[in-house]
Amino acid sequence: MPTKPVCLVIGAGAGIGGHVGSRFARAGYHSVLCRRTDAEGLARSVEAIASEGGSASGFLLNAVQAGSIEERIAAVEADIGPIEVVVYNLGAQIGDRSLDQTSDKAFEMGWRLATFGLFRTARAVCPLMAARGSGTILATSATAAFRGNRGQHSHAAAMGGRRMLCQSLNAEFGPMGIHVAHVLIDGPVDAPDTLGKMLGPEAFRELRETRGMEHDGLLLPREIAETYYHLSRQHRSAWTHEIDLRPYSTLPWWNTE
Amino acid sequence: MPTKPVCLVIGAGAGIGGHVGSRFARAGYHSVLCRRTDAEGLARSVEAIASEGGSASGFLLNAVQAGSIEERIAAVEADIGPIEVVVYNLGAQIGDRSLDQTSDKAFEMGWRLATFGLFRTARAVCPLMAARGSGTILATSATAAFRGNRGQHSHAAAMGGRRMLCQSLNAEFGPMGIHVAHVLIDGPVDAPDTLGKMLGPEAFRELRETRGMEHDGLLLPREIAETYYHLSRQHRSAWTHEIDLRPYSTLPWWNTE
Amino acid sequence: MPTKPVCLVIGAGAGIGGHVGSRFARAGYHSVLCRRTDAEGLARSVEAIASEGGSASGFLLNAVQAGSIEERIAAVEADIGPIEVVVYNLGAQIGDRSLDQTSDKAFEMGWRLATFGLFRTARAVCPLMAARGSGTILATSATAAFRGNRGQHSHAAAMGGRRMLCQSLNAEFGPMGIHVAHVLIDGPVDAPDTLGKMLGPEAFRELRETRGMEHDGLLLPREIAETYYHLSRQHRSAWTHEIDLRPYSTLPWWNTE
Amino acid sequence: MPTKPVCLVIGAGAGIGGHVGSRFARAGYHSVLCRRTDAEGLARSVEAIASEGGSASGFLLNAVQAGSIEERIAAVEADIGPIEVVVYNLGAQIGDRSLDQTSDKAFEMGWRLATFGLFRTARAVCPLMAARGSGTILATSATAAFRGNRGQHSHAAAMGGRRMLCQSLNAEFGPMGIHVAHVLIDGPVDAPDTLGKMLGPEAFRELRETRGMEHDGLLLPREIAETYYHLSRQHRSAWTHEIDLRPYSTLPWWNTE
Repeated sequence: MPTKPVCLVIGAGAGIGGHVGSRFARAGYHSVLCRRTDAEGLARSVEAIASEGGSASGFLLNAVQAGSIEERIAAVEADIGPIEVVVYNLGAQIGDRSLDQTSDKAFEMGWRLATFGLFRTARAVCPLMAARGSGTILATSATAAFRGNRGQHSHAAAMGGRRMLCQSLNAEFGPMGIHVAHVLIDGPVDAPDTLGKMLGPEAFRELRETRGMEHDGLLLPREIAETYYHLSRQHRSAWTHEIDLRPYSTLPWWNTE
Repeated sequence: MPTKPVCLVIGAGAGIGGHVGSRFARAGYHSVLCRRTDAEGLARSVEAIASEGGSASGFLLNAVQAGSIEERIAAVEADIGPIEVVVYNLGAQIGDRSLDQTSDKAFEMGWRLATFGLFRTARAVCPLMAARGSGTILATSATAAFRGNRGQHSHAAAMGGRRMLCQSLNAEFGPMGIHVAHVLIDGPVDAPDTLGKMLGPEAFRELRETRGMEHDGLLLPREIAETYYHLSRQHRSAWTHEIDLRPYSTLPWWNTE
Repeated sequence: MPTKPVCLVIGAGAGIGGHVGSRFARAGYHSVLCRRTDAEGLARSVEAIASEGGSASGFLLNAVQAGSIEERIAAVEADIGPIEVVVYNLGAQIGDRSLDQTSDKAFEMGWRLATFGLFRTARAVCPLMAARGSGTILATSATAAFRGNRGQHSHAAAMGGRRMLCQSLNAEFGPMGIHVAHVLIDGPVDAPDTLGKMLGPEAFRELRETRGMEHDGLLLPREIAETYYHLSRQHRSAWTHEIDLRPYSTLPWWNTE
Repeated sequence: MPTKPVCLVIGAGAGIGGHVGSRFARAGYHSVLCRRTDAEGLARSVEAIASEGGSASGFLLNAVQAGSIEERIAAVEADIGPIEVVVYNLGAQIGDRSLDQTSDKAFEMGWRLATFGLFRTARAVCPLMAARGSGTILATSATAAFRGNRGQHSHAAAMGGRRMLCQSLNAEFGPMGIHVAHVLIDGPVDAPDTLGKMLGPEAFRELRETRGMEHDGLLLPREIAETYYHLSRQHRSAWTHEIDLRPYSTLPWWNTE
């Protein structure tokens, strides 16, 4: 059983989640990677960390299933060690869908993943962190947390709820030493498991070649991870609660292209 | 069957909802008042409108029940007439509750009332309004839609979702002629069914006497109703999507007292 | 000397300012129209109000000149009557200019018109209104008050300052009975003196014919004026401080087209 | 003449500016410290950096004087080396002043320091950075950039302008490789030259002892400097434009205490 501090990543695919897990592992954390599917991909992520000399575990986790997050947190605390950092990285983007193409079920699923899952995570982990007087919760967020848009009924409602929840958590738990940060990822991420799947392999490869790569026009997950790590290192006299990240060549959400 | 235009109020107690219903009735609408409980109070509201020469109907409606809103909208359209204005006035304030006092069930109930209910309303009414090329949806909202706060985990997540949903609805349906407005009620309302019940009769009476009444330090629902009516009258060349309302003596949410 | 209440419009061309002046005159105010140039246009506006049975005066006013606003306010109070409503309608849009095309002088002029002029107006009129326990200040504002953009260095800095000033004025003077409202005009206005001059007569005519007119795709100043008037009529128990206006077919600034 | 990259700090007292200069010097930059007065304090800051093995220069600079910033930037580029990072750290807080206590001159001075000075800095340095394809501008900002408040007429108007200017600069220069970040310092800073002077020595000492020190209830400038440095290191695929900082025990501006 490692004595390293634990970083729990909920939503650890090959993009932000995986890179954040690996960044914390390089810094001496034991990273616990959780994702819904793809046991092989998960094993590869864990092995990649180990091959760099880091320490990690991986678990399949269906976050919308009742009790799933709560039980995973309890098990990690019991079997691995105190969770110092939680990265809540589950998205709820389902592409642009008009209202009549957005079923009740899809709308509810967005909320379960993006809002309720974070609430349940906080309910499970905040009492433990508060008792220890410290902890960090980093919530990956999206443009849709700041403004609704055509086709974003489910996503925007879910992410708007997430942002307000982060502010509420911070108001209660900041003074107890728990650092809650809401990280707006305001642009396309170079991530095969999310953007890649949404676009399909051809279009994703083309986008990477034209806009990403040499041009850095896609958010690189390994660079995002540097800022996540910095946030976790901030001294409690100077904490960030809201921060945005986007490529230099992408205008912010508040500008029109 | 009246040939008057219909104003449907979901959440028509003795506060904002009731006064808005009565304001639209005075302007020539048939107001359909819906509330969850208190058949007597509902009947009184309908009669009060009738006694002023207006036209109204009242229905008990449990908004969180599957199909309830959808069926009511269909029935109103079939039995009474085309809905021109919907006022979505269901709140989800449950008072300040720390995270450990906020159950999964309470958190979900906030979302069902404040976010999902509006989504279901829009799913039912927008196609009808879009086919007619016009319609108005006025959503009552709260400070918690703009910032989370201590004890507001459920309320803020629900209202933050509501605001982003309003923006998404507007982006899709504005160009089709449906006017969606998000009305921030940023202060205490002089409403016996909500503030009154939260405070209890004694404290409510005292608050009305010291802060309300002569001093206008509480939002008066009949005055709020004037602005709701104005919004519904705006010409489509100059629509408001976000507006705030508060008493002159109350500092806005962005200021500290 | 009329005993009518006075509405002072600073920036009263043929667009928003002129129509607001005329709307208040129809409601029984004496409208005082001020604009920098075009004595003939000013006279036409005053006569148009008179021909409808309303009451108005017109003055040329160079708002950036030291003492100009202050003296006009003092003279109106002395010669015409107590100012109940001030509409501060001076814009500072100079079109998109890159940083190297934005001179120190242009940047300063933007501030003098959009920010400092409103400050000076408030310094002159707030003590009078506070002594009377009531008054209304309506500030026309622009998208640039909410987000900077390419080429908007001068305009955005000036309008961002204006918005924060409105909030500061409200915090001090709201509880004294002065209603300060910041009105975001978030789209192109069908106004010959501003948009018309910026585009030139040909392009303006074409825009009106394709987007305005039948399609209501331009903000109509006479419709904007209805909302200005409504704001001035709000009861002090339910005041609006921030409101936006745009055509039904134009997406809000927070959306991309 | 050093071949180190240059970090220019405009507003380098003993608080944020001085600590940021010293942080960049530790990272291998030559820090150029500029402040309006106190040649002795300036010399001490430069020597402190040298005594740690770092490299620094100091200049007295009256930022509101015409040409002062422009000439300093030209001289640094000519005599010391290319400016890679500019930290614009001039505040404009003058304490709470009612409108009638805020002179035209005070209002203008706020704008000259907080808004116009940053504009002039950008006009001087952006063409140089754009020609090199890279550079960083970090603007220290204040709560008043996000909301006006009682007594903040001058400060809020100036800082609101600063924020919108930062967004405009970013929209033009981000795609050219210049990273513009707006850093909200949302709480009291443990800084003798600003908070210390505003409170007086007695009250400042007491505040440090009760709220600062062991309790970390004041923002520590050396910790703020860590985040400034991190921002300057962000890869261009993941830049931050807006970030906030506050002590763990201080509620954000959007909450009431």
